[in-house]
Amino acid sequence: MSDLTLYHCPGTRSTGTLWLLEEMGAEYTLETINVRAGRTAEFLKINPSGKVPAIRHKGQTLGELSAISLYLCDVFPEAGLAPALDDPKRAQHYFWHVYRPGVMEPAMISKGQGWKAEPGMIGWGELDDVVKRVDETLTQNDYLLGDSFSASDICAGGAVSWMVAFGMIEPTPAIKAYLERLQSRKAYRRMLEIDAELAPKA
Amino acid sequence: MSDLTLYHCPGTRSTGTLWLLEEMGAEYTLETINVRAGRTAEFLKINPSGKVPAIRHKGQTLGELSAISLYLCDVFPEAGLAPALDDPKRAQHYFWHVYRPGVMEPAMISKGQGWKAEPGMIGWGELDDVVKRVDETLTQNDYLLGDSFSASDICAGGAVSWMVAFGMIEPTPAIKAYLERLQSRKAYRRMLEIDAELAPKA
Ligand SMILES: N[C@@H](CCC(=O)N[C@@H](CS)C(=O)NCC(=O)O)C(=O)O
Ligand SMILES: N[C@@H](CCC(=O)N[C@@H](CS)C(=O)NCC(=O)O)C(=O)O
Repeated sequence: MSDLTLYHCPGTRSTGTLWLLEEMGAEYTLETINVRAGRTAEFLKINPSGKVPAIRHKGQTLGELSAISLYLCDVFPEAGLAPALDDPKRAQHYFWHVYRPGVMEPAMISKGQGWKAEPGMIGWGELDDVVKRVDETLTQNDYLLGDSFSASDICAGGAVSWMVAFGMIEPTPAIKAYLERLQSRKAYRRMLEIDAELAPKA
Repeated sequence: MSDLTLYHCPGTRSTGTLWLLEEMGAEYTLETINVRAGRTAEFLKINPSGKVPAIRHKGQTLGELSAISLYLCDVFPEAGLAPALDDPKRAQHYFWHVYRPGVMEPAMISKGQGWKAEPGMIGWGELDDVVKRVDETLTQNDYLLGDSFSASDICAGGAVSWMVAFGMIEPTPAIKAYLERLQSRKAYRRMLEIDAELAPKA
């Protein structure tokens, strides 16, 4: 039993944390939570939001995909998935971790649900603007933070991959090539394998 | 002219960054952007989302309130508004910075707009759950991270203060006392003063 546990449900947002842990080569215990079967009192003690991903590390629990990613990057700096505190790229590391839950996700859900609101008031925008922003970044560089892969690619790149899989966006050539780069990673494929093994049980 | 510029519009989300900078005692240049008058090509170059807050620091621009707060806490560690990298509280520092844009804001907007979606699919939940989460935290401690004030109180506490001001939630006794603690801070009042001075111009 390691001092790090991931609460995971196959085929959900927690695949992002699973992928991250595989990239990090971290030791962890996997605890399967079938969120589709409804919330349990037991799991609500781990994550009061009732959602995966959640982790337990050194006796402390933590929810929210982006928060978990930011935290784990600090816990495992040797994995090299985040710029150091004094690296100017640290700004963009934070940006993409906030942009995913605060802008990408609500823009995606709003489009899917047909919700419209005054653009100035809501904190996000149209999904097209998200695609444009990502496309512009990837037209300049292979990865969101520049030349090399980072946790931002798992977090925000993972959301882009989800948008394409759900047919919500038409990938631009830069986005298409990017997703191929991500999906050919060893840790990404390892995540898919682990997920496939777990799926029948959850 | 300092090497840090805040792009700010009075009475908007960027008051959170203004408050943060005042708490930090940072040197900064204030650039007023009247977002209510519509987006300008010039500002879209600073922030492609067209939104405040945005900052420029050492030639680099950055948007998203939470990302800016996380970044500035690293730039000004001596302000003591964030737990150090190896402090277990760092997890909650990330949590509240992600919870505000990813859960608090969309829950607030969804309630205001009367949007309903399947709870398991969307990444946020009901505004009542947010209030419960904040209330439980503040029933245990005076501030979101424990005994002392931090950037999380500006970021997530600021959203709570906004919910109450807009009549979207009924503050619990713990939340009411908390907001009084926040609003009696010198830097908070300084932010209000700066904002009031700027308001007629924007
Ligand atoms: N804001 C959360 C969203 C997580 C989330 O919504 N997870 C879904 C699975 S994809 C879940 O656990 N749903 C179960 C439920 O809400 O009861 C995050 O970024 O971690
Ligand atoms: N997700 C952004 C939201 C910022 C935002 O929506 N700001 C509003 C003012 S409160 C704005 O600038 N609106 C102008 C516009 O969208 O054109 C953040 O957290 O910084």
